[in-house]
Amino acid sequence: MPYRPFTGQNCSIAGALGVIGERWTLLVLREVLLGRRRFREIQRGTGAATNILSDRLQTLVERGVVERVTPDDGGGSERVEYRPTQKGIELVPVLLALIEWGDKWECPADGPPRVAVHDRCGHDAHPYLVCSHCGERIEPGEIWMRPGPGADEEQKAEPRLPPVPAA
Amino acid sequence: MPYRPFTGQNCSIAGALGVIGERWTLLVLREVLLGRRRFREIQRGTGAATNILSDRLQTLVERGVVERVTPDDGGGSERVEYRPTQKGIELVPVLLALIEWGDKWECPADGPPRVAVHDRCGHDAHPYLVCSHCGERIEPGEIWMRPGPGADEEQKAEPRLPPVPAA
Repeated sequence: MPYRPFTGQNCSIAGALGVIGERWTLLVLREVLLGRRRFREIQRGTGAATNILSDRLQTLVERGVVERVTPDDGGGSERVEYRPTQKGIELVPVLLALIEWGDKWECPADGPPRVAVHDRCGHDAHPYLVCSHCGERIEPGEIWMRPGPGADEEQKAEPRLPPVPAA
Repeated sequence: MPYRPFTGQNCSIAGALGVIGERWTLLVLREVLLGRRRFREIQRGTGAATNILSDRLQTLVERGVVERVTPDDGGGSERVEYRPTQKGIELVPVLLALIEWGDKWECPADGPPRVAVHDRCGHDAHPYLVCSHCGERIEPGEIWMRPGPGADEEQKAEPRLPPVPAA
């Protein structure tokens, strides 16, 4: 089933999900970012059916998240590679945020299957968000949303409350 | 259509998507975290059909992401509230990462509809990831994944390459 973009949502979350929100898409992107570039490798890593994987890769190519590269060496379609574009690589923070949350709340019994390493310093990254203004670590409950330049009338009237956990 | 968890995936991304990967779920959570707690408010904000929204809220309650709270004042089912739990609030970084990416790559013409504010310092957050070891800002292309304690044999043999953009 092809992914239907959300309509009537003036929202960057919905916009992002319109590209990468389909059930298999982030797993496909995971494989590509892990360095698996061939169709069969990606299929093996995700377990996606051939027609589904073809469809999702096609969407990712159309939306500029991955690039389809045909080597010029006459190797045929088996040699086609799917490589992440800059737009695709910039989804790494989304995947890291999912990993952090999954590691904490939905972790396999043996512990995290994969750990993010910061290539520049060579150590485990355990990445976290900081505020670009004060430089402090952002706790999830400390964020609220204000209307931006693209807010519609309803969004301009939204309450400005940081989330609070259930009592 | 109910969400089918991925099988045979030893992966925290797949684990997280098993909870919040269904098409409407992150929009529902967005509403709850924005402070909309009643069924009708969430429905209005997402545009989800009644049966779909009931199903997704039920899943979020079952998975401990939101809590269903019935006020003790005799107001009836119209007064039922859905509040984020700590597990739900800790999905804020996932939503922030989606917003950052959506703002940059899939933005409405007028600009971002919403901007994240860091409540502690009171300024726009423009959050970014840092490495917990060296404290430096992490660029998406600087991360690679090493096998963790829960890695299976195949994951232990994965190549260790940071992603590179298509040439």
